[in-house]
Amino acid sequence: MKNYEQLIRYFEQQLEKQSFSGEPGELYEPITYTLIYGGKRIRPVLTLMACELFCGKAELALPQAIAIELFHNFTLIHDDIMDNAPIRRGKETVYRKWNGNIAILSGDTLFALAYQYAQQADKEILQNILSVFNRTAIEVCEGQQFDLNYETNNQVTVGEYINMIRLKTGVLFGASLKIGALIGGASVSDADNLYEFGVNIGLGFQLKDDLLDTFGDENIFGKKTGGDIITNKKTFLYIKALECSDASTRQLLVDLYNNEEAESITKINKVKNIFTRLGIDKIATNEIEKFYSKGMEYLDRVKLAENNKEILRDVASKMVERDK
Amino acid sequence: MKNYEQLIRYFEQQLEKQSFSGEPGELYEPITYTLIYGGKRIRPVLTLMACELFCGKAELALPQAIAIELFHNFTLIHDDIMDNAPIRRGKETVYRKWNGNIAILSGDTLFALAYQYAQQADKEILQNILSVFNRTAIEVCEGQQFDLNYETNNQVTVGEYINMIRLKTGVLFGASLKIGALIGGASVSDADNLYEFGVNIGLGFQLKDDLLDTFGDENIFGKKTGGDIITNKKTFLYIKALECSDASTRQLLVDLYNNEEAESITKINKVKNIFTRLGIDKIATNEIEKFYSKGMEYLDRVKLAENNKEILRDVASKMVERDK
Repeated sequence: MKNYEQLIRYFEQQLEKQSFSGEPGELYEPITYTLIYGGKRIRPVLTLMACELFCGKAELALPQAIAIELFHNFTLIHDDIMDNAPIRRGKETVYRKWNGNIAILSGDTLFALAYQYAQQADKEILQNILSVFNRTAIEVCEGQQFDLNYETNNQVTVGEYINMIRLKTGVLFGASLKIGALIGGASVSDADNLYEFGVNIGLGFQLKDDLLDTFGDENIFGKKTGGDIITNKKTFLYIKALECSDASTRQLLVDLYNNEEAESITKINKVKNIFTRLGIDKIATNEIEKFYSKGMEYLDRVKLAENNKEILRDVASKMVERDK
Repeated sequence: MKNYEQLIRYFEQQLEKQSFSGEPGELYEPITYTLIYGGKRIRPVLTLMACELFCGKAELALPQAIAIELFHNFTLIHDDIMDNAPIRRGKETVYRKWNGNIAILSGDTLFALAYQYAQQADKEILQNILSVFNRTAIEVCEGQQFDLNYETNNQVTVGEYINMIRLKTGVLFGASLKIGALIGGASVSDADNLYEFGVNIGLGFQLKDDLLDTFGDENIFGKKTGGDIITNKKTFLYIKALECSDASTRQLLVDLYNNEEAESITKINKVKNIFTRLGIDKIATNEIEKFYSKGMEYLDRVKLAENNKEILRDVASKMVERDK
């Protein structure tokens, strides 16, 4: 049984062996650039791991693990255009390094390549796997559109925000596990429970992202905190703070977010103070804990040996209890 | 046996029955807007027709016909962003009516929806069908990237241009037929020959487009001619003219294309005169005829009854001998 780090190494070695080159170069260079360096590889590792837990052979799910990583990177390339993001994983984004058109098209190609890998499954389970893959792809697009809508909507509720990150992040965690499990021969009910486990862990993972971006320890987090505040991102922290605060605090927070002139450090500190005063960091930590527990409930229902479940519990902890 | 017009009507009726609605509306409204009104439906009709020719039941290939129409419309939505196109089928393009981000995302969703239909095939042939679909999707992206590259490349050869339109247009015609044939139970060799038939007819179709845009009879063509000249589009006519002309004519043509100040009518007439003087319209007509004949050679090799082949010959004629 390979552990998490071994699966990452295995996946990276196998990914490097794939060829993503072709003509015209403008289409394929951004794909290699995006895929080969960087990324935590969480999703494909979940696929490999789920498969291994059920049948002992992670490699059976390698094509689908690659498909999921390709799909994830396709969404990043397109999201970066929409978000005007200059940097991704410490490097220039595709649309900045090349241009918007190349980013659109190389993203589209990556999406098609993802399907080329996804379809490499036994015919008895292929349709089932593709159904999960398709539905997830559509939901991730829905999540991104909600995210875009919320940028200009000041009435977003916590429930709407959670639903958005469920679509944008949660379902792909769930699908990664479910697809791996199906390839490993899991029953539909086990695969479904693993899916819900993944969705909840994904939600915890995303909320942890929100939390770390503002409250992380910069020395451990490895990058400057406060990025979300500077870019006026409506995170769980911000939306929850609006919900919890009285009229004057709410106004103060809205004004701070809308003030483009404010000095970065001052703005970060003022917003952070409001969050702390309202106890938002603790509320977020509780919320993460809730999703983690909910995920565990689903995991409990999966028919796997206890020591195998332990591996998934470890992964879940790693994702929601991380400091970076 | 349904004829071409009956298959169009059947397809449109069935397409209208599909639901492309969902939340958020920003994602799904552009999809319905793009899909439901307009489009010649050539590609899905080819799929239905090929299926019917081999098994007598067009409806067996309906999901894949829908998949191909969805895929085609996805490429149009994204292409219109890249080409800054304001109008498509007489209506505002998605990125103009909504915005670029919505056009990217609703296009992505349409691509995923296309796969949702494509996968609805018998498990014995599913992987085969998806392989054709995936490879075609990737090639269409390659074709579009070549097209973008050629906008700023003044050294494009006729061979490169033909390869570009083969990828951008030809292969989807081929794939439409091949997928329909496979679902209808055709042998691999028949399906492959139909594919090549389709690619060549698609090439003829695209060259006819180039020709009509400049030399069409406006009363029959239904829209103003000269659009490609005004937008300095490097069509077969332009590239062939550069190839055939002496140094001074070449310079004149390049200058006319680069002159943004020129009065539209004057520019169109001057370029048209050069084309006519060099006999480019006749060369193009010959080239179309060549692709048509090559398509027919492939069709001859398909093992179908003569009266069934006649239906495909009619369709091919319709596409390359059209006046609009």
